[in-house]
Amino acid sequence: MIKNTIEEWHNLVKQKDAAGLDKILADNVVFHSPVVHTPQTGKPITKLYLTAALHVLNNDNFKYLREVVSGQNAVLEFQTVIDGITINGVDMIAWGEDGRINDFKVMIRPLKAINLVHKMMGDMLEKIKK
Amino acid sequence: MIKNTIEEWHNLVKQKDAAGLDKILADNVVFHSPVVHTPQTGKPITKLYLTAALHVLNNDNFKYLREVVSGQNAVLEFQTVIDGITINGVDMIAWGEDGRINDFKVMIRPLKAINLVHKMMGDMLEKIKK
Repeated sequence: MIKNTIEEWHNLVKQKDAAGLDKILADNVVFHSPVVHTPQTGKPITKLYLTAALHVLNNDNFKYLREVVSGQNAVLEFQTVIDGITINGVDMIAWGEDGRINDFKVMIRPLKAINLVHKMMGDMLEKIKK
Repeated sequence: MIKNTIEEWHNLVKQKDAAGLDKILADNVVFHSPVVHTPQTGKPITKLYLTAALHVLNNDNFKYLREVVSGQNAVLEFQTVIDGITINGVDMIAWGEDGRINDFKVMIRPLKAINLVHKMMGDMLEKIKK
């Protein structure tokens, strides 16, 4: 049981705690990438993508901006800078009665930023899988 | 004075009421496109972009999905299908004490959808400007 999902999420991001994903993700969590339409279902694949994202996006420039939270839904707007390109995006997070995240969707703007993140995420997923 | 900004926004979208933008947008509204980093400032340019978006995105397939609203911020998730490509996005809307929208940001996923919307918005802006 997780009392405050978004508080836990922020702790996890601050500590770059990829192992903590095990606790906060529901077994049947679905991940929706900013690049590809097809949803990714299940904890292992979602963990893989979020671990890669923690490595790629979560640098010293990373910060959350707006947070809109209502019921069991949150939208956390973030910003970071990589290679001089500003990356602006949202984590759209939904959770169940037990507080565990069952849906995680990411959108990114502008176009230049998506193309960069697409490339970097691909490289990082290759590295992690090895 | 607008009592319920999001209710007014939904009416405007349903009726494809581009003229209604005059009432709902603040004079100093800032528009952030899904494609370009630089914000567009002011009512005339924001009206232009939102009018084009009402034409391009708001077809018979258009529907809003999740809505997360808190204080003077709302995130409205939408979906539509154009040329067989599913377009998933968010309208991130903020408003002032008078209920008028002072910040409007759009993000779109997946990559294929952004590229399509980018092209269609370019064509539509050309048409509207003429």
